[in-house]
Amino acid sequence: MKKKKKVNAAILIIGNEILSGRTQDKNVAFISNWLNLNCGISVLEVRIIPDVEKIIINNIRSLSKKFNYVFTTGGIGPTHDDITAISIAKAFNIKYGYHKEAYKILENYYGKEKFNDGRKKMAKMPILAKLIYNPSSAAPGFITKNVLSLPGVPSILNSMIENCKKHLIKGSKVHSKTINLFTVESNISKQLTIIQKKYKKFVDIGSYPFFRLGKIGVSVVSRSTSKKKLIDTNKELMKVIRSKKIKILNI
Amino acid sequence: MKKKKKVNAAILIIGNEILSGRTQDKNVAFISNWLNLNCGISVLEVRIIPDVEKIIINNIRSLSKKFNYVFTTGGIGPTHDDITAISIAKAFNIKYGYHKEAYKILENYYGKEKFNDGRKKMAKMPILAKLIYNPSSAAPGFITKNVLSLPGVPSILNSMIENCKKHLIKGSKVHSKTINLFTVESNISKQLTIIQKKYKKFVDIGSYPFFRLGKIGVSVVSRSTSKKKLIDTNKELMKVIRSKKIKILNI
Repeated sequence: MKKKKKVNAAILIIGNEILSGRTQDKNVAFISNWLNLNCGISVLEVRIIPDVEKIIINNIRSLSKKFNYVFTTGGIGPTHDDITAISIAKAFNIKYGYHKEAYKILENYYGKEKFNDGRKKMAKMPILAKLIYNPSSAAPGFITKNVLSLPGVPSILNSMIENCKKHLIKGSKVHSKTINLFTVESNISKQLTIIQKKYKKFVDIGSYPFFRLGKIGVSVVSRSTSKKKLIDTNKELMKVIRSKKIKILNI
Repeated sequence: MKKKKKVNAAILIIGNEILSGRTQDKNVAFISNWLNLNCGISVLEVRIIPDVEKIIINNIRSLSKKFNYVFTTGGIGPTHDDITAISIAKAFNIKYGYHKEAYKILENYYGKEKFNDGRKKMAKMPILAKLIYNPSSAAPGFITKNVLSLPGVPSILNSMIENCKKHLIKGSKVHSKTINLFTVESNISKQLTIIQKKYKKFVDIGSYPFFRLGKIGVSVVSRSTSKKKLIDTNKELMKVIRSKKIKILNI
């Protein structure tokens, strides 16, 4: 069997509006799905923290040591509460100021007359950062060591994510197979435990209750970097399902 | 001015399905809003972690020291990947096993014949934990020291949250005021910085771009435990808005 390469990442959501519950985060699911599908990178931790410099610095330091990549979202706009860039510069003790290329991009986009102080602030970042180009609203994201900083607005973030790809080392994609069953978890929990133990080195099996069409069901999700092991696991799951005469919901 | 009491909390989302992006988390926004509105408790950190015992233990230990309360979601069902209860018991070095009252509740709910091993597992937890009653599917949540453990399924969690209230010390509610403007952030960023500096001890001002009716806008959100300071801040914000002739979107 070919050795599978594991590359991991953390996501650091910076923003009081997510913590307070005012805004529903949508970036975690998007980034995590995109990273796995396009780069074979697994997100292993997410943190949501407030717009407080010291807290951002501490989290950048600890997460950047612990994971191959850290993706930050939020805090790179023009207002006083946008402090991601300066906090990252402080976390790594590197120079912060106008980034030449970012400055040019923004000056061209707004035109010299409308390029006011607020807009200029978006060109301030670790001065040697690599840029992540922004096709929707110009203001670039940036890469500092293994930390990739993206904006918080989902539509803008989504438009930029492809531009992260070339900067990332690729890992092995995690494949997944979902079987949706009309049953309750406790009806299959013993058998799932046995199958999970047998394949524990290669496959992660998760079990998630759902409610649909007025009925209770369970999604059994198997995940593995090995397609073969995934097929083997699912054969065993199907045996259990048949022997228990459980109805499968085909979606 | 009456001294405001600050009570804080962290949320620990336990579940591979959220990390992988398969499932969109909805519990953070719900819990955070509910805690502020009903108990005056501010959520200051959220972490999303996988179903791995060692990781759960480490996070329970660090978050329970750092915050007044920790809310966990997920991992308290009947299957092999539900390991929240045993991990919490290990984190605090306390006895884990059948919780007498939880066992009775579940036995009554399912009836003796249908009370199988999977279902019995949901009665296993730190044996001296306080229970959080579950009006929708019986299986209770539980409180271990300052850690409140709830299920991951949003509809069930939502039905249980009121039963947390009596176990929580109340803090001062954070009031908020939102002004939605048809302008861009950079048009008001300088003035927002000045007002934020003036009120920094009492009020947090956030600025969040939005897109609506084909136009770009900014939501300016002020948050404070003091209603009076919030009114003062908003008077100053309105001065800026009027002087710049910015259109207010009345919603």
